[in-house]
Amino acid sequence: MKKLSTLQWETSVGALGKVDEEAFRSGRLCLIDQTLLPMERAHATCREVAQVWAAIKKLQVRGAPAIGIAAAYGVCIGLQTLFADGRTPSMAEFYERLDEVTAYLASSRPTAVNLFWALDRMKSRAERLPGTISPEKACVRLLAEAKAIHREDKVLCRKMGAYGATLVSDGDGLLTHCNAGGLATADYGTALAVFFTAHKQGKKIHVFADETRPLLQGARLTSWEMREHGIPVTLLCDSMAALVMRQGKINAVFVGADRIAANGDTANKIGTYSVAVCAKAHKVPFYVVAPSTTFDLTLRNGSGIPIEERDPEEVRCGFGKQTAPDGIEIYNPAFDVTPARLITGIVTEFGIISPVTRANIAKILGSEKR
Amino acid sequence: MKKLSTLQWETSVGALGKVDEEAFRSGRLCLIDQTLLPMERAHATCREVAQVWAAIKKLQVRGAPAIGIAAAYGVCIGLQTLFADGRTPSMAEFYERLDEVTAYLASSRPTAVNLFWALDRMKSRAERLPGTISPEKACVRLLAEAKAIHREDKVLCRKMGAYGATLVSDGDGLLTHCNAGGLATADYGTALAVFFTAHKQGKKIHVFADETRPLLQGARLTSWEMREHGIPVTLLCDSMAALVMRQGKINAVFVGADRIAANGDTANKIGTYSVAVCAKAHKVPFYVVAPSTTFDLTLRNGSGIPIEERDPEEVRCGFGKQTAPDGIEIYNPAFDVTPARLITGIVTEFGIISPVTRANIAKILGSEKR
Repeated sequence: MKKLSTLQWETSVGALGKVDEEAFRSGRLCLIDQTLLPMERAHATCREVAQVWAAIKKLQVRGAPAIGIAAAYGVCIGLQTLFADGRTPSMAEFYERLDEVTAYLASSRPTAVNLFWALDRMKSRAERLPGTISPEKACVRLLAEAKAIHREDKVLCRKMGAYGATLVSDGDGLLTHCNAGGLATADYGTALAVFFTAHKQGKKIHVFADETRPLLQGARLTSWEMREHGIPVTLLCDSMAALVMRQGKINAVFVGADRIAANGDTANKIGTYSVAVCAKAHKVPFYVVAPSTTFDLTLRNGSGIPIEERDPEEVRCGFGKQTAPDGIEIYNPAFDVTPARLITGIVTEFGIISPVTRANIAKILGSEKR
Repeated sequence: MKKLSTLQWETSVGALGKVDEEAFRSGRLCLIDQTLLPMERAHATCREVAQVWAAIKKLQVRGAPAIGIAAAYGVCIGLQTLFADGRTPSMAEFYERLDEVTAYLASSRPTAVNLFWALDRMKSRAERLPGTISPEKACVRLLAEAKAIHREDKVLCRKMGAYGATLVSDGDGLLTHCNAGGLATADYGTALAVFFTAHKQGKKIHVFADETRPLLQGARLTSWEMREHGIPVTLLCDSMAALVMRQGKINAVFVGADRIAANGDTANKIGTYSVAVCAKAHKVPFYVVAPSTTFDLTLRNGSGIPIEERDPEEVRCGFGKQTAPDGIEIYNPAFDVTPARLITGIVTEFGIISPVTRANIAKILGSEKR
C-alpha cells in the first residue's frame, strides 16, 4: 500500500519536495481521510479550494496544527485558478484572489487559531514580495511558504515531545483526550509527541485514551496511533476517566489545544474541561501541549474564544444508526475552555510554562518569538 | 399499537391481575425490549427462565428495581417446568427447583442489589409457606409475591418522587445520568420520578440528560421518556456535563443507584462518579434517588460492591459499526462507586437522608423498615 502522510503537497511531475512553477501548477493536496480511520486507510485529494474547505469542515483533516498546514496549501490550490485555461493574471488579480481564498478558508472552522495564523502568514508573505515579481513566481513563493509551515511543524513536534517527555517517568500511566498526535500535525503530534518521545527513550508508559464523543477521535485515531507505535493503550469511555484517576492509574494528563488565551485559558476538544476538573480533584498534573502558534495573545482570557457548535446529528446518529429520539434538543459544542488555574503546565517548543500565568506566558513567547 | 408496560406478567386466560393456578401456569413475562428503543417499541416475551436471565444480562430489562421485579417473575417462570407434561411434583422438588432457579437468576448481573433482594424475598416467602401446602398452591403464592413486589415498586416511585420534588424549584435545570425512569422501575422511576412529580406540580424544569456511554441509556431512554412526558430535555455527551455546570445551567443532579453501602457510598452507572466530582467542583447539589431495597447494609462501604465488567465490544462497536481498532485494550466497567462525601442527599421512600452519614442511613432505614 502507498505510504500515507497526514497531509502532503503532491505534484504530477517532478520530485515531491521541488518548489517551482510546475510543482505549483500541477500540485494538489493529498491527505489521509481521517473520517474513515481506523477501519480504512485512504487518502482524499483536494484539487479545488472548496474541497480543502470541506475537508477541514468535515474533519477529514483535523487537529489545530494540521488544519493550519492544510489551509496554507489550500491557499495555493485556490491560487491555481488564476492560471486556468492558460490565462496570464495580473498581480492585482493575484492579491484579489489571495484575499478571497484566505477569507473563504477562514470560514471553515472558528476555534483553532492555527488556521488563522497560517492564513495570516501566507498573506504576510505575499505582502513582502518584491513589487516586480510575476504572479507565477509569487505563487511559487507562497507554495514555498506553505511547505515551510509544514516543515517547521515537524520540528515543533519534536521539540515539544522532548520537553514534555521530561515530565514523564518510567512506569507512568498517562491519560489523553481526543487526538493530538501525528494525525493532528505534520509529524509526531503535540500531546502524543510526549508519549512517542518518552516511549522512544525507553520509558515504559501505559496510555489511557478517552474515546472522545461524539466523533470518537480517541477511539478511532489515538488508540490506532498508539497501536501502530507499539505503545500499550487502554481505551476508555470519557465518563470513565475520573474512575481510572481514582484507581491511581493516571500519573499525568496530556492534551493538545486549539487556542490559548494570553492568561493560559485553553480551548480544546469538548470534554477536556471535564478531564481537567477531575484531574484537579485527584491531584493529577494536567498538561497542555501546543506550539506557540496556538496562543492568541489578543485574547485576555478564554471567554473571548469562539466555540464552534456542530450538527446535533453527530450526537443523535453518529455511527450510521440513530440512537436518540427525534424532537429533543441536543447540545453539541466542539470545544470547551479549560481555565488556566486547572492547568499544571503548558509545553511549547520553547519550553514548559509552569505555573501558567500571564507573565510566564509572555516571557516564554515574547522573548523567544520576537 | 398495544400499550406496553416496562414489564408485565401476562396470562393467556383470564384477567391480567388474577392470581390463581391458571394465571401461574399459563403466565409469561412480557417486557419492553429496551435494547430497541427509541427507534422501535417492541416487547420481548419470556417463557423460559433462560430467557429471563438473558433479558437481564442483555439489558432488554435494566434498572435496579426493574431487574428485581423481572427476577421475581423469573422465579415463577422457572417453577413452571415442575408441571411440564402434566407432572405432579413433590414439595421437595418445588424447593429444589426454587433454589436452582434463584441461584441461576442471581448469576445474571452482579451489581444491582435489588436483584438479590427480590430473589431473597421470593425464597423467604416460600419458607413461610404452611407445611401442608401443595406445590401448585405454593407457586400461586409466589406469583402473588412477585406481583406484590411489582405493585409495591409503583408506590415507592411515587413516594420518592414526592420527597425528591421538594428539592426542585421552579425554573431549575436538572442533570441526570443513565436512565432511572419508568423503564428502570415499575412506574415513575427513581431519579426521574422527581422530574415527573415536579413537572406535574407545575414547576418549570429543564432536564439535561447525559447520553451515558457506552450503551446510551440517557440518549435512548431518558430523553425519550422526557419527550413522552412533555418535559423539555437537552441531550449531552457525558463529557459536556462539566461545561454545562460551569455555564450555571444545572441547579441539581439526580441519579439512581444500583447498590448503596451502609455508609452511603453508591454504585450506579459508569460515569456517575465523574458527574459527582464535577458537581462538587461547581457546588451543584448531587442527589441519589433509590428505594430502601437498594441499600446493602452488609457492606460497610462501597469498596465491597462487586463491579460488573462488560464486553469490550460494547465500546469498540456499539452501534453496529466498529469505531476502534482491533488489538487494543478496552476497559468497560458497567458501574462506578460514588463516595458518600460527594452525595448531598439520598432520597428514599421514607424521606431524604442528608447529610449522608452511617447514622442517618441507619436511622431512616432502621426505624422505618423493621
